[in-house]
Amino acid sequence: MAANVQDAIMLLGDSLTQGGYDLNGFVAKLAHVYNRKMDVINRGFSGYNTDWILPVFEQCFATQHEQQHVPKIRLLVIWFGANDAAPPPKPQHVPLDRFRANLRKLIWMVRAPESPHYSPETRIILMTPPPVNTAQRERAQLAKSPPKELDREFETTRRYAEAVKEVGKAESVPVVDLWENLYEAAGREEEKLEDFLTDGLHLNEKGYAIVFEGLEKAIKDAYPEYHYDNLQSVFIYFDLIAENPDKYMELTKKRSAFAHS
Amino acid sequence: MAANVQDAIMLLGDSLTQGGYDLNGFVAKLAHVYNRKMDVINRGFSGYNTDWILPVFEQCFATQHEQQHVPKIRLLVIWFGANDAAPPPKPQHVPLDRFRANLRKLIWMVRAPESPHYSPETRIILMTPPPVNTAQRERAQLAKSPPKELDREFETTRRYAEAVKEVGKAESVPVVDLWENLYEAAGREEEKLEDFLTDGLHLNEKGYAIVFEGLEKAIKDAYPEYHYDNLQSVFIYFDLIAENPDKYMELTKKRSAFAHS
Repeated sequence: MAANVQDAIMLLGDSLTQGGYDLNGFVAKLAHVYNRKMDVINRGFSGYNTDWILPVFEQCFATQHEQQHVPKIRLLVIWFGANDAAPPPKPQHVPLDRFRANLRKLIWMVRAPESPHYSPETRIILMTPPPVNTAQRERAQLAKSPPKELDREFETTRRYAEAVKEVGKAESVPVVDLWENLYEAAGREEEKLEDFLTDGLHLNEKGYAIVFEGLEKAIKDAYPEYHYDNLQSVFIYFDLIAENPDKYMELTKKRSAFAHS
Repeated sequence: MAANVQDAIMLLGDSLTQGGYDLNGFVAKLAHVYNRKMDVINRGFSGYNTDWILPVFEQCFATQHEQQHVPKIRLLVIWFGANDAAPPPKPQHVPLDRFRANLRKLIWMVRAPESPHYSPETRIILMTPPPVNTAQRERAQLAKSPPKELDREFETTRRYAEAVKEVGKAESVPVVDLWENLYEAAGREEEKLEDFLTDGLHLNEKGYAIVFEGLEKAIKDAYPEYHYDNLQSVFIYFDLIAENPDKYMELTKKRSAFAHS
């Protein structure tokens, strides 16, 4: 049983989050740069949309009553849209208005004092879904056994990315605009997104590098006090023990990662 | 604040564990294959030896009283020796007898009913330190500014690896013999360890791949019920929701990863 020694970053999302420990992905990188400062909790659920995530998030994010016992979530990253944007009648499809409302509800759950999950020390970041490469996606779908139809549209996913930005603006939540960052990296040519995607929808190592870069910058800009460079390790670095090995019992006492708190 | 939805694997070790999210390391791989089944908690502390880790572990591993509230540690991986084997008068040096005693104390803390940290559902795995490539290590130390002396010995680290195996035998704890696995992969030639090490002491991506392989096999052999292939996801896979989207509230209820518990 893990005692509660480190605060945490929770990543809430779909397969793009779930897969983020693979391929030197953004979750692995984040966990690495925050090592000994904050833990990273991957709550990525492949295939989920924002309708289905609401009851899951209620179970994953502690209630006020539970919060005293469990790791404090300092940062919550919310990354959806890739599945909500599946065109109807795909069961993953969530209409744009409800997509916006669902994102606002996730934010409300953490920020509203009347919410059972109210957590005033949790900062939030939204991320937009990556652009889709429909030609690459179609090839990947046709190569499946049995072959499947193209299941995403370039322009539709773009609108869901816009919706994330609208919610961010309305709720004063910083947004990492991955749609824009990736499309720009591809020279604003849909076909060139192949450099960053494995199957037209999911990210490869280069794509994940852009996710990490954008998220790191958003933390630095919006919540610099939570950036890893501004935290100290919960347990002291060994060279300070090595200078005073007789005092190791005293020196190995847990500290707050936040030097001034 | 994270509610307690998944049990966890805790990795207790030194820099080799701390660095395991980097370079497609074994921690990232473990977190990836266990995604949605168990969380991975990295408690790697660069430079620490088993003397210094004892008070840290007491703070990281919940007491019986705390255990009802926090994620259950199903698997504890203990990986030390690389720093304990530093030759005296290096302050990291821990004599062999005390190294063995410290490892046994860590095991006792989790397994003894009279221990405040007693946790009967936690399974334990020990790992041996990797072999040192002293020529490579010496070059890396000399390249530092200011240059440093060689700080490890091939034969000494081998004896610490043997000590880990002795403790495993005495305590009936499975051991991943990384010293052997890596030395064998290098054709039993110290110089050829360069293929698996960055600086004669720490692992590169190929070295970490051997760590993951050995650990995965140990879980499969010793604790098959905790192997990821034998666990179910805590939240159901999306395709089952997509078949019955009207029932999503019911279908998204948290389950135990252990289908039969």
